[in-house]
Amino acid sequence: MVSNEFAIAIMAAGKGTRLKSKHPKVLHEIGGRALLLHVIAAAETVVPADHIFCIIGHESDRVRTAVAATGVQFVLQPEQRGTGHALQMLKADFELSGRPIPQHLLVLSGDVPLIRPETIAAVRDTHLREHAAMTILTAVPADPTGYGRVLRASADKPEVTAIVEQKSLRSDQLSAPEINSGIYCFETAALFARLNALTTNNTHGEFYLTDIAAMLVAEGKRVVAIKADSVDEVLGANTIAEMMHLDAAMRLSTAHRLMAQGVTIFRPETCVIDAHVTVGPDTIIEPYVQLLGNTHIGSDSRIRSYSVIQNSRLGDNVLVRNGCILDTAEVANNAILGPYAHLRPESRIGEAAHIGNFVETKKTIIGRGSKANHLSYLGDAVIGDGVNIGAGAITCNYDGVHKHPTIIGDGAFVGSDSTLVAPITIGAGSYIAAGSSITEEVPEGALALGRSRQTTKPGWVAARKAAAKQNTNS
Amino acid sequence: MVSNEFAIAIMAAGKGTRLKSKHPKVLHEIGGRALLLHVIAAAETVVPADHIFCIIGHESDRVRTAVAATGVQFVLQPEQRGTGHALQMLKADFELSGRPIPQHLLVLSGDVPLIRPETIAAVRDTHLREHAAMTILTAVPADPTGYGRVLRASADKPEVTAIVEQKSLRSDQLSAPEINSGIYCFETAALFARLNALTTNNTHGEFYLTDIAAMLVAEGKRVVAIKADSVDEVLGANTIAEMMHLDAAMRLSTAHRLMAQGVTIFRPETCVIDAHVTVGPDTIIEPYVQLLGNTHIGSDSRIRSYSVIQNSRLGDNVLVRNGCILDTAEVANNAILGPYAHLRPESRIGEAAHIGNFVETKKTIIGRGSKANHLSYLGDAVIGDGVNIGAGAITCNYDGVHKHPTIIGDGAFVGSDSTLVAPITIGAGSYIAAGSSITEEVPEGALALGRSRQTTKPGWVAARKAAAKQNTNS
Amino acid sequence: MVSNEFAIAIMAAGKGTRLKSKHPKVLHEIGGRALLLHVIAAAETVVPADHIFCIIGHESDRVRTAVAATGVQFVLQPEQRGTGHALQMLKADFELSGRPIPQHLLVLSGDVPLIRPETIAAVRDTHLREHAAMTILTAVPADPTGYGRVLRASADKPEVTAIVEQKSLRSDQLSAPEINSGIYCFETAALFARLNALTTNNTHGEFYLTDIAAMLVAEGKRVVAIKADSVDEVLGANTIAEMMHLDAAMRLSTAHRLMAQGVTIFRPETCVIDAHVTVGPDTIIEPYVQLLGNTHIGSDSRIRSYSVIQNSRLGDNVLVRNGCILDTAEVANNAILGPYAHLRPESRIGEAAHIGNFVETKKTIIGRGSKANHLSYLGDAVIGDGVNIGAGAITCNYDGVHKHPTIIGDGAFVGSDSTLVAPITIGAGSYIAAGSSITEEVPEGALALGRSRQTTKPGWVAARKAAAKQNTNS
Repeated sequence: MVSNEFAIAIMAAGKGTRLKSKHPKVLHEIGGRALLLHVIAAAETVVPADHIFCIIGHESDRVRTAVAATGVQFVLQPEQRGTGHALQMLKADFELSGRPIPQHLLVLSGDVPLIRPETIAAVRDTHLREHAAMTILTAVPADPTGYGRVLRASADKPEVTAIVEQKSLRSDQLSAPEINSGIYCFETAALFARLNALTTNNTHGEFYLTDIAAMLVAEGKRVVAIKADSVDEVLGANTIAEMMHLDAAMRLSTAHRLMAQGVTIFRPETCVIDAHVTVGPDTIIEPYVQLLGNTHIGSDSRIRSYSVIQNSRLGDNVLVRNGCILDTAEVANNAILGPYAHLRPESRIGEAAHIGNFVETKKTIIGRGSKANHLSYLGDAVIGDGVNIGAGAITCNYDGVHKHPTIIGDGAFVGSDSTLVAPITIGAGSYIAAGSSITEEVPEGALALGRSRQTTKPGWVAARKAAAKQNTNS
Repeated sequence: MVSNEFAIAIMAAGKGTRLKSKHPKVLHEIGGRALLLHVIAAAETVVPADHIFCIIGHESDRVRTAVAATGVQFVLQPEQRGTGHALQMLKADFELSGRPIPQHLLVLSGDVPLIRPETIAAVRDTHLREHAAMTILTAVPADPTGYGRVLRASADKPEVTAIVEQKSLRSDQLSAPEINSGIYCFETAALFARLNALTTNNTHGEFYLTDIAAMLVAEGKRVVAIKADSVDEVLGANTIAEMMHLDAAMRLSTAHRLMAQGVTIFRPETCVIDAHVTVGPDTIIEPYVQLLGNTHIGSDSRIRSYSVIQNSRLGDNVLVRNGCILDTAEVANNAILGPYAHLRPESRIGEAAHIGNFVETKKTIIGRGSKANHLSYLGDAVIGDGVNIGAGAITCNYDGVHKHPTIIGDGAFVGSDSTLVAPITIGAGSYIAAGSSITEEVPEGALALGRSRQTTKPGWVAARKAAAKQNTNS
Repeated sequence: MVSNEFAIAIMAAGKGTRLKSKHPKVLHEIGGRALLLHVIAAAETVVPADHIFCIIGHESDRVRTAVAATGVQFVLQPEQRGTGHALQMLKADFELSGRPIPQHLLVLSGDVPLIRPETIAAVRDTHLREHAAMTILTAVPADPTGYGRVLRASADKPEVTAIVEQKSLRSDQLSAPEINSGIYCFETAALFARLNALTTNNTHGEFYLTDIAAMLVAEGKRVVAIKADSVDEVLGANTIAEMMHLDAAMRLSTAHRLMAQGVTIFRPETCVIDAHVTVGPDTIIEPYVQLLGNTHIGSDSRIRSYSVIQNSRLGDNVLVRNGCILDTAEVANNAILGPYAHLRPESRIGEAAHIGNFVETKKTIIGRGSKANHLSYLGDAVIGDGVNIGAGAITCNYDGVHKHPTIIGDGAFVGSDSTLVAPITIGAGSYIAAGSSITEEVPEGALALGRSRQTTKPGWVAARKAAAKQNTNS
């Protein structure tokens, strides 16, 4: 493909009034990512980013900033006067900038986020194969009522005779099954030559791209249609409820992709799995699990219900018990987490290590086979292999001004309810007595205590009661 | 409307045998509230509470107690001998009490909880406009089989010719689409004049109100029908499974109301949102969130999955991370909670404050920008602005007999694992060393320590092992 | 029934290639149990375990080990050459072993796990009543396309004329509604006499049991069909997605069974309830609850959302708040747990006891009315009646080598953040001061302290800041 043969325009100027939101429509998120970013990602599989032109308008600065990192181009449509007007702006931009005009132009909608790369490629391929002036992507929903319909000369032929809005359908056309997706491919010259002929003689007073189809057909040019495999991928979202439908559809499709690769996902429709998550075979995902962002999970692992794992990397045979929260963490093979373990960013859990209930880690490395099983906070710590962190032990990493590190050597035993006041080093093989506040370095193999001796006062409770009674009586 | 023009009778005497429950049917809860309370709430939008007559029978004392606060009237139906019998009891009550008889009587079912105020009003308005002796609310389900059917003289006319039970339908009537909801409006005089003519010549040996329709039609009186917009709102619940269906329908409809107002609710069918909850636009509700009772959430907030918020008030731009439990709490703008924060009643979290993981608050005020991020229990405390509560710090508010308060001044730093023995005051800007037990007042700007100095015994671990070995050998 | 009249063969030799799993298909779990174990459990209701013959092949050792405890017999099918071949192996096994041949042979599939005992019995009874040579279990799905179809002589007669694969259906047979479930009953002699006549003249080159039906019909033997009540119970699982469908169906059917018994289960399709769980009437199960294994819950209890209860026994009027995890625990009447309580194996919670948020118990007995409400770890402990365990109190049950017990007498008060260093005994009615490390026995009624006296240094914070400033300046 000649580099300049194809370009893609993405309609991204609308406000989305029916969303009742202050955010521009194409920045609303489904599947963990803005609508427009989904469309750009699909478009990028067909043309390079600098051949993608986002036509922006409403809150254009916010939209531009949100997607700038993709490297796409932007064209401003200051007023939103219809899809035809959007491409008039694009044409003007080409003319002003002197940019070479691509031979073909694919038009996508920034609010139709489930469009698949395969489908965009199919539109392109059909367009080329059919030598069409315009190629229309259609779909066949269960009930086409309300949609604009694409009429063909013959049901089994690609040639289109008209695009007709619902209200203009003749009674014998009411059951026409194919709807217009609003996704097109044009021979750019044929399109640009007709854009100025568009009028606003319609209910909304806008310039409609569908009128180009009518012009081309009237002039005997070739307009063809191709059906999308599923309806969901051409559905837009005009209301939040519709957007939520697309979110669920996108994530369910990811779950089905993983199941087809040998991952067991109980109640797949209840899980929230982002599109780029990867999971090895024979891993079991229980209901109500969330795997978000760039998460990878190895094979033979089990993720129990209500756990939320984001941007993390887990090995093989890892057991994540119920309700764990992981964010930007790494977990090696055979580790066991939770229930209710909370791994914050830069937590690295070693092979076969255990992080138990109500334990929080942050910027902390836990060595091979080490255990912190109950009610601990471990922050800014480097913990060796085979270490035992007792229940309730806490790294005091913050002195009100700075954060300080805690270093614990291999095989150390940190007694329950210990307070490790950082910066501090606990030597390998050392032993911290339960209930100790540790403020000074502990050498290898040493015992450290930092607690008071017990005092016992026999009969105290009875005496206190007697005194209280006397007080009440007096 | 003349105050005595309309009254409403609500059938609430039944046992609900098929529920297999010891509780009376109308006290079973859906959407967080007893069935009967939903019906009363809808009825109260049309007539004042003292014009509503609940006809009670099975476990009448419990039913009366459960709804007494609404101010409705009660009529006892000691035996449950059918809907006609229920209104005979109502008539007798009017006669005995000498209460003025209302001109029109609306009849609702205490176990049809999704009935909407708009629909009750529509029945009333139709009744008046049509000058009917009896007006019947109908619905058109996908499959009417099994339901009593309302037959009209003509499909597009309001006049009813008969109500026919499923088993009495002629073959040409089997597909009659309109079902009888059991919700009626009567001209009271016309009704009361015929109640004594009802017989029990039917399968169940009960007095049926539907026979009144037959009498009125036979006498040439005007009986009309009006269709409900949806089937759900006339559905009763005879089994627990049916009741659960109504619960889900009620809550989903609340989710859709909020989405239409600009709230993003991912997987809306998975959330549990009570009818009176309000949420500002551009707030995001993740899947599996529960918003219960009189909860209000501001704009631009985010409630993450598995959080349950009941009778609480949250401001704008609040972030509630996963798994937080809030009950009767207040949370100011820009605060961050969780994951797994537990705010018990009378918790008031200040602006931009942070309550982190495994932290519980109860009857506690947290000032602006203060932080309690890990593993704390804060009870009966008043905490100022800019305070830092270290990991594991605990207010010891209970001495085995009484609860005592803890007061912490602005800018204080409470070290990790501190134990604050209440009653106690920690002065503004003071500093509590990690691991301290604090039993006495700490002045402003002071340092307080309450921990032992560390003792270190080098070589202790090796010595212990040697001793243990010798013990084993000896 | 003569003990040797019936035997059951279960097809369990397949690999399940489409699962993309290294585990044999019949060992994949749904409803908390391997597919094959579900089928064996159903089969055992009809014949004794030693009359059940599992035909195993792929990973036969693993399959044998996984189900050996049921007492079934095994027959090896070393190569998987079709259902007919499987029964050839069975026949050979009977012949070699000299085992008496049963008069009738029921054939089940190890990957059709929802088959109900009632349905197996109905196949058996039909087979006997009809004096059939072969009885075929059928089902009528919404869309039979793709399935082998069972054709009858007449729709209302039991006699079968043919089993026809989808691709061999004549156009007038395409809508034949009854599909072949692959579940059969044979007169064993009639079957065994024809097994050697099977050929592999088919697409997959396998020996097919369906060909036996054709032979029998051709010879004028009686082949009859009986319809299953539901389609789900004859569905197999060839993909993980299909298996997940069966899992959801199985668990939903359990939820419906419980609701019919008077249990309220909100959003029943969201709960995960294993087949053998029992729950008393008027207990309320909130959405997203999991009741697993051999769990029993009494009456009038409430289990709040996100709780997971496995192999545990709960009494009446127990309240389990959100997010509790119970494994092999016992909870007496009127107890209150959670939110986020974690009861590990051998936890026994007494009547009206409270275990609160972020509390973990393990091998621990809690007496009547005792409370451990916040942030505790209680392991290897025996705690009496009326004990109060303060927030953050911890049993230090592990010294790095051994686990030791903690005994706490009735009515003791264990102050917040106490550290109980086991082995240790805390006497009845004694009082442990908050923040204490307790290492020695506490007598009945005594006060024990193990904490340092507080030291306060007025003006320290200002002095430190001044020093820091000087350091920065110098």
